[in-house]
Amino acid sequence: MTVIGFIGLGVMGAPMAANLVQAGFDVTGFNRSPAKVQRLVEAGGRGASSAAAAAEGADVVVTMLPDSPDVEAVLLGDGGVLERLAPGTIVVDMSTIRPDVARSLAAAGDARGVRVLDAPVSGGEQGAVDATLSIMVGGDASTFEAAKPVLDALGRTVVHVGPPGAGQTVKAANQLIVAGTLQLVAEALVFLSAHGVDRERAVEVLAGGLAGSAVLDRKAPAMLARNFQPGFRVDLHHKDLGIVTAAARDAGVAIPAGSLAATLIGALRAQGHGDLDHAGLLLQVEQLSGRTPAD
Amino acid sequence: MTVIGFIGLGVMGAPMAANLVQAGFDVTGFNRSPAKVQRLVEAGGRGASSAAAAAEGADVVVTMLPDSPDVEAVLLGDGGVLERLAPGTIVVDMSTIRPDVARSLAAAGDARGVRVLDAPVSGGEQGAVDATLSIMVGGDASTFEAAKPVLDALGRTVVHVGPPGAGQTVKAANQLIVAGTLQLVAEALVFLSAHGVDRERAVEVLAGGLAGSAVLDRKAPAMLARNFQPGFRVDLHHKDLGIVTAAARDAGVAIPAGSLAATLIGALRAQGHGDLDHAGLLLQVEQLSGRTPAD
Amino acid sequence: MTVIGFIGLGVMGAPMAANLVQAGFDVTGFNRSPAKVQRLVEAGGRGASSAAAAAEGADVVVTMLPDSPDVEAVLLGDGGVLERLAPGTIVVDMSTIRPDVARSLAAAGDARGVRVLDAPVSGGEQGAVDATLSIMVGGDASTFEAAKPVLDALGRTVVHVGPPGAGQTVKAANQLIVAGTLQLVAEALVFLSAHGVDRERAVEVLAGGLAGSAVLDRKAPAMLARNFQPGFRVDLHHKDLGIVTAAARDAGVAIPAGSLAATLIGALRAQGHGDLDHAGLLLQVEQLSGRTPAD
Amino acid sequence: MTVIGFIGLGVMGAPMAANLVQAGFDVTGFNRSPAKVQRLVEAGGRGASSAAAAAEGADVVVTMLPDSPDVEAVLLGDGGVLERLAPGTIVVDMSTIRPDVARSLAAAGDARGVRVLDAPVSGGEQGAVDATLSIMVGGDASTFEAAKPVLDALGRTVVHVGPPGAGQTVKAANQLIVAGTLQLVAEALVFLSAHGVDRERAVEVLAGGLAGSAVLDRKAPAMLARNFQPGFRVDLHHKDLGIVTAAARDAGVAIPAGSLAATLIGALRAQGHGDLDHAGLLLQVEQLSGRTPAD
Repeated sequence: MTVIGFIGLGVMGAPMAANLVQAGFDVTGFNRSPAKVQRLVEAGGRGASSAAAAAEGADVVVTMLPDSPDVEAVLLGDGGVLERLAPGTIVVDMSTIRPDVARSLAAAGDARGVRVLDAPVSGGEQGAVDATLSIMVGGDASTFEAAKPVLDALGRTVVHVGPPGAGQTVKAANQLIVAGTLQLVAEALVFLSAHGVDRERAVEVLAGGLAGSAVLDRKAPAMLARNFQPGFRVDLHHKDLGIVTAAARDAGVAIPAGSLAATLIGALRAQGHGDLDHAGLLLQVEQLSGRTPAD
Repeated sequence: MTVIGFIGLGVMGAPMAANLVQAGFDVTGFNRSPAKVQRLVEAGGRGASSAAAAAEGADVVVTMLPDSPDVEAVLLGDGGVLERLAPGTIVVDMSTIRPDVARSLAAAGDARGVRVLDAPVSGGEQGAVDATLSIMVGGDASTFEAAKPVLDALGRTVVHVGPPGAGQTVKAANQLIVAGTLQLVAEALVFLSAHGVDRERAVEVLAGGLAGSAVLDRKAPAMLARNFQPGFRVDLHHKDLGIVTAAARDAGVAIPAGSLAATLIGALRAQGHGDLDHAGLLLQVEQLSGRTPAD
Repeated sequence: MTVIGFIGLGVMGAPMAANLVQAGFDVTGFNRSPAKVQRLVEAGGRGASSAAAAAEGADVVVTMLPDSPDVEAVLLGDGGVLERLAPGTIVVDMSTIRPDVARSLAAAGDARGVRVLDAPVSGGEQGAVDATLSIMVGGDASTFEAAKPVLDALGRTVVHVGPPGAGQTVKAANQLIVAGTLQLVAEALVFLSAHGVDRERAVEVLAGGLAGSAVLDRKAPAMLARNFQPGFRVDLHHKDLGIVTAAARDAGVAIPAGSLAATLIGALRAQGHGDLDHAGLLLQVEQLSGRTPAD
Repeated sequence: MTVIGFIGLGVMGAPMAANLVQAGFDVTGFNRSPAKVQRLVEAGGRGASSAAAAAEGADVVVTMLPDSPDVEAVLLGDGGVLERLAPGTIVVDMSTIRPDVARSLAAAGDARGVRVLDAPVSGGEQGAVDATLSIMVGGDASTFEAAKPVLDALGRTVVHVGPPGAGQTVKAANQLIVAGTLQLVAEALVFLSAHGVDRERAVEVLAGGLAGSAVLDRKAPAMLARNFQPGFRVDLHHKDLGIVTAAARDAGVAIPAGSLAATLIGALRAQGHGDLDHAGLLLQVEQLSGRTPAD
């Protein structure tokens, strides 16, 4: 049986680790908060008291952490996970981090005979719980094949998109599209409201045409219900859009719509809404338009 | 049997009229070009030599014309269709026109006892051919119910969204979202290309997550194949975005992302690409990024 | 002595008419509010009870009105000023209106032998009072020469920029630049504030380099003093930016920065700030950035 | 006599060092290319064969280098300038670098008793030659007073704007305003051209009103003459806008117009125009508008 070390049992990581247990893997998890480790144990996994202990003896180590520095701290450096692993071990970093950091982690792995994949996900907490995530994987093709049974237990669309870093690049593109689409849907809803149109019905018919999208299906209802509980927090989307804009700048790609979306998500955060779901972009369009919910 | 007069047998109107014939309606069509009328006759309909003749004696008159002035010219004024119709006749304007013009057409109908609906569509030529259009209908609820059997023969999602003009308002929102999403997808594709990612696979995995959309499903493949045959022409989308930005301005709604999309579609047109499909936005992102297709 | 009829004695028109009196012209003024006519009389001019009466017998008729429809109403139609004027009379419309309307007014004048100039101004109330306006004039060159002594009494920079409508086109360009520069200065000031920089000194040094501008000189102090008394109202700038964006759209010119400025001015107005000076853009940047004046 | 070490004798540094010689200072210069050192010697200065040698024994060390890493390389680390200087020596970094780097340089100086100012400039090559630069200075007030005689020999507007880093922050604001204003002027010029207006005269009258700016005065003529020889290169402005957008993001300040300008400068560079003067933004507006110079 494949032995998995799972590091990072947060909103996404906890249900993902539980799904791996469910799928029959031998999973040992670690999180800084012991309560979250305990919950994995209750779900049938094992707990570890450090990242290194969780990784010890694993065939596959999965990391699901907030940002680039967190992943670097866990994997690299003195006492980092990477130097403890047996050659041939696979590390699957499913966090959303900078593509260049993903590439340097892969290179660090290579130097030690450890095979590193970057495999960020899309689909949110619900997708993590339902094991219906989209998983975009960068790295060596044979490593991808070796890790695929593990990834198949976590998502519905698992695709190898290219060399190390490519998974993170696709995730960056994903976040660009999602932020922009949220903004467009928010603008459309305020526009419809200002013209007195029945928005529930409008969303229904928009969803059936070329304007249809996962954002419209999943986030417009939340906007209309004014339910901005995350979901995916503005703070995190802001972090991700920093990655997008930097990577676009580095590559000399003009992303005017993506940049605007990044500005608007950043503004939402600056106004103190970092803890809202990113569907909270509606609030900002309303504010800019001088409209209150009651309008 | 319901008798239908159908005015405007263009790229969209021709297959729509044919679908009505197919569904068993008695359809008389008119178009300025006789060749198109002839094709409807071949499909089992009747031909008329003027808009007024097509409308004569109809229970339901459908108009499918390029722009607001075309619809006004056909329906209003001396010798216009509206004044020839028997009280109680239903006029369904399925063109994409200005919401305020739609409202004034409805008022002009009211004054003559003619019941006018605005019922623009989304779904493109393919949706017209397949009778899978999304149809967003503004006007009186009872008129909507009376016209529904006709609309059901043309589309899959037929929704009454509010009073006169509401259909056009929802169509405007549709065009805002579609233009912006096309731009976002174009930016994402150039971004992925610049980073050396396999774009076909990237689109596959993006489609499975929150970045998924009808635009990604239907237009990203055309972008990757560099097939910019319309489909929906940049010229027409430009016209529609003029409606959107004017209606947003009138209502005091801030649509920064929609305005940017309108600027970019306008620029594409100014560069001589008005006859391309709106997926041609890809070309402009490539140009702005100094990238050629071969990159 | 040149006899002048002056129609429109508002914030701008009143000091302009007074300056013409001062310069020795025989000025008869009209305004819908009699109190304003009275003030011109006190300044040494004559009063009239209608636009037509003010224009009667004038060598030069000046109009200074809010918007295109106002100018059309006064000059055209039954009982309009244009049809009362003797052939050869000069009409100088100094309002800010649509270039196409300016061209049609010139054509209407031509048809009656009346020589029409479009001559909008920049420089604000202070420039009107001090007779230091910039005046951008469209129309026939010989008419411009004939009217120049009158214009020289009103402004410091009086330039013939082209055929009918050209003055309004240049004014549109002026409003584009001014709106965008105000937004840039507002962004810079909030940026400086957020970083704890002494803004008065920063403005002083910025003014001396390539960032220097009339907006920085005249409007940054108002922003820092939080004095948003007009000056030039957001409502009027919003109207003007509607002219700019329509004219850019008509000509197929991409103005992404101008369009963004138009969106932001429109948003400021939608939030109820239409009566503030356009320097009020600062408030919106502060709001978007979650910063209060006290920050 | 104050002894000055001057490190960086490029387009800006060379005339600045010459001006210091002219003002009577004892100047020893260093540049990686010996030819430039030779030119300073011909102008009456001394040459050094390393940065450290130029700084040796100086009362004031001036650095004028391309970017943050260049300044860090010269001042910090083993064999860096900072560790060779006697306590009390003043270092004036006049490069345009990141405000946070400026702050860390100041802290590194403090640790060794060296007084560091950040003093970036605006005014371009001409301003450097004419000693009319605007100089925005961050750092200790008494150090500013001590260095002021040196700075007064280089610029016309020399202002202490705040603590360490404040000079760079103001320079960032300067670059934000300049980039945006260049774009606005470019848009206005293409707009005027498309409408057939005499642009030389339009610029003349625009310069006299609220649209007037140093950019309009100095850069519009270059645009009209299609002279895009730098001046200030797009590459450098792109670098600076990276500083601006990062600093705005760090501080949570929404700069939609500044971000758009950064995107457009970045696009110009991506298209291979990095070596043009930033007035080259005109070319991009023309391209987006489908207009050639001949139009």
